[in-house]
Amino acid sequence: MNSVDQMKLFMEPRSVAIIGASRATGPGSLNILQHLVNARFAGRLYPVNPNARKILRMKCYPSVLDVPDNIDLAVISTPRSLVPQLVEECTRRAIRAITVVAQGLADGDEEGKELQSEIVRIAREGGSRILGPNTFGTVNAFNNLTTAFLELEMKKVPIGIIAQTGLFFVGLPMCSLLGKGIDLGNACDIEFADGLEYFEHDPDIRVILLHVEGIREGRRFMEVARRVAKRKPILALKTGKGDEGARATQSHTGSLAGKDEVYDAAFKQCGVIRVNDVDEYEDVAKAFLRLPLMKGRGIGVITLTGAGGIITLDACEKYNLCLAKLSPDTLSKLGALAPPWQSLGNPADIWAPMMIAGHPFDEVFSTTLAAFLADPNVHGLIIIFYAFSPEVPISLMGGVLKVIDRFEKPVVCWLYGPKVEQLASMMDKTGNIVVYPTLDRAVRALSRLNDYFQIIEGDR
Amino acid sequence: MNSVDQMKLFMEPRSVAIIGASRATGPGSLNILQHLVNARFAGRLYPVNPNARKILRMKCYPSVLDVPDNIDLAVISTPRSLVPQLVEECTRRAIRAITVVAQGLADGDEEGKELQSEIVRIAREGGSRILGPNTFGTVNAFNNLTTAFLELEMKKVPIGIIAQTGLFFVGLPMCSLLGKGIDLGNACDIEFADGLEYFEHDPDIRVILLHVEGIREGRRFMEVARRVAKRKPILALKTGKGDEGARATQSHTGSLAGKDEVYDAAFKQCGVIRVNDVDEYEDVAKAFLRLPLMKGRGIGVITLTGAGGIITLDACEKYNLCLAKLSPDTLSKLGALAPPWQSLGNPADIWAPMMIAGHPFDEVFSTTLAAFLADPNVHGLIIIFYAFSPEVPISLMGGVLKVIDRFEKPVVCWLYGPKVEQLASMMDKTGNIVVYPTLDRAVRALSRLNDYFQIIEGDR
Repeated sequence: MNSVDQMKLFMEPRSVAIIGASRATGPGSLNILQHLVNARFAGRLYPVNPNARKILRMKCYPSVLDVPDNIDLAVISTPRSLVPQLVEECTRRAIRAITVVAQGLADGDEEGKELQSEIVRIAREGGSRILGPNTFGTVNAFNNLTTAFLELEMKKVPIGIIAQTGLFFVGLPMCSLLGKGIDLGNACDIEFADGLEYFEHDPDIRVILLHVEGIREGRRFMEVARRVAKRKPILALKTGKGDEGARATQSHTGSLAGKDEVYDAAFKQCGVIRVNDVDEYEDVAKAFLRLPLMKGRGIGVITLTGAGGIITLDACEKYNLCLAKLSPDTLSKLGALAPPWQSLGNPADIWAPMMIAGHPFDEVFSTTLAAFLADPNVHGLIIIFYAFSPEVPISLMGGVLKVIDRFEKPVVCWLYGPKVEQLASMMDKTGNIVVYPTLDRAVRALSRLNDYFQIIEGDR
Repeated sequence: MNSVDQMKLFMEPRSVAIIGASRATGPGSLNILQHLVNARFAGRLYPVNPNARKILRMKCYPSVLDVPDNIDLAVISTPRSLVPQLVEECTRRAIRAITVVAQGLADGDEEGKELQSEIVRIAREGGSRILGPNTFGTVNAFNNLTTAFLELEMKKVPIGIIAQTGLFFVGLPMCSLLGKGIDLGNACDIEFADGLEYFEHDPDIRVILLHVEGIREGRRFMEVARRVAKRKPILALKTGKGDEGARATQSHTGSLAGKDEVYDAAFKQCGVIRVNDVDEYEDVAKAFLRLPLMKGRGIGVITLTGAGGIITLDACEKYNLCLAKLSPDTLSKLGALAPPWQSLGNPADIWAPMMIAGHPFDEVFSTTLAAFLADPNVHGLIIIFYAFSPEVPISLMGGVLKVIDRFEKPVVCWLYGPKVEQLASMMDKTGNIVVYPTLDRAVRALSRLNDYFQIIEGDR
């Protein structure tokens, strides 16, 4: 079976057996079957538990061998010692996709390591594949599948996650990213490359996030990632950088963290964009979902605060963007707005044109915005804006921002002042601009949009 | 007059003249007098404007020379060309503190630079000091003073800001920091050292933030900062790092940005803690206000997610903290909780003790927390916690956290999951723990608490 068809059994099963289904039901019961029912998974469900006759009004089978129908996916949720035999039974039933939830395998002691090897051996001999162990399994908001033992909020966002943890499925602090998720756990068999190939042509998924503790099949990963990265941006959070992190990685998923520089070089080589913390996932994913790519490294800055403009330039230097040199045409449009003592350029500090030269806000702002967007040297734009007090109509901003749609250039924004939340939510609805909580993060997101442009253009 | 008495005229004036007071009143009028009235400033106010007889029902004087009473502070808010004469009039009235709001001085063209020199010369000859130009002036939530032309929300937080911008007075996106603020603007006369000496013994202020574009009086700054830093933590955001930033600094406040490495070394030498963006201001200031110092570099990690523990270790390496080596006593307490295959240590992944070994949450969590806090090798603690679904009582956490009060060690937290906001706000109320939005930021804040410990201990 090829990798995509194999992964479809994990991600889009028509029937799922829950082996070791818990009899405890209701909120807080950590019951996988309950979560599948709550999520309204439409496929067939088969609870397996020798000590129960019914769970959640469903017939419960003593063994997977007793289930009368075909099973696409088996989820084994039992203590570790029972797993080898249960995997063997699954292979006898020709179940080709087996998720092993149990902890304490290669992430535990020597006995656990041996058990894990045995599980892999049995599955291979029987022609089945294992996801995990030590995993939430798979989650798919597009068909309401979840094999996680914690209840999840799923949304049909076009983001696919391949992780060695359930952390990103349970919810990042600032946003829910879960469109489709594959928790590799200890990654004893199903690996990153399998997940990447599944997402490669998946029409539901536009951005791929990786959480990597260790990659075993380095060559295959490189080959697949290089190919997939040309179609969809791949962001990777590689953890376990130092000695302590590497040791902790060993006891978390039994992975070998490896030299951080090796991963760094490998990601660069195959066009995977590395991120450094969970907030960068959110920031950069949002940029890819909402904004056009940045086709050069020239940034334009329109600001109501000179100090904010300077902080932006510091961030540009950090993230390797450069201040766009404005064309004479742009400069003359800006010059007409400035008071005599100001040479308005880039960054364009538009406070004085309004407050000193007395031009009205929407004239100054829309002239500057249009001039910057039309300038061929400006490849992306950051707007630094004071979120006015309520008496100044925030809606004014909405009209001005329409001009952005005429240009294929990314525009990001940082807001300050008393009405940040209101204005941010209004701008969020326009859909053509992303507001970031700091200037550093806004510039970083723009920079990644150019990184990916370079990746698909193959300049690297 | 010494620097503190001089600054008191700017920060705690009993009487203020607003020279060039605007006749436009009401919301959005950018009227300084209006804002002082709205803020309920208790001192005497004298509007000065030759074209008005009354503003906001107050008698308006044609010139400051006509005001019958003593004036502590004059705020000159007129076009730049009028400023030299008005400063001269102030000196004749023996007004010792003069705030010049106008833009377009050293931040503008050659004519502006000359005007600024003239203003300084006139003030010095007349025995007065200038704050600004190009400034919001001073803000003091403790006596309801604001000379800003934008309306501000002031709170009596024990944070003093000395900045070359009004940006931080208008409000950072995520929190209001304005206890007392001094906007140096172009800093033609009143400098950072003056502000630092004012805050040095100010009982209202516990943390000092600097926003620096350029410091002229380097030697005096170093001498004062070194002294003040031993009493109160000083955080500095130095902007204008690269060439573009330096150019923009020149046109923002006429400051010379200087070599970034020189500032870096100078800050280190005098015990000023450098921050890199506005979110770090907020993070670190909160840590200093709410948490004890970290008296060593050993960190303890208690987590419900192994992946989160590893991300924390990466951050520890980045911020030069090290994983505490637990004492045998702590290890034996933890060992009693773990399933046989787990060697529970630091980070302590307490998921398996609950889910596999079956110990109840509060036993596991409070035992681990108390053991870590009591361990002499643990100098600070990070808790990584799953914000449960509502059916699991969040209040449970509150009881457990009480143990923190018995130890003089900083505890920070990162939350993930569906109920992050509810749990964060509950934990925020306990007052003895700070929740950060990312692991990187949580670890960074802890690290700064140790940096400052080293500064006051003089190990550096």
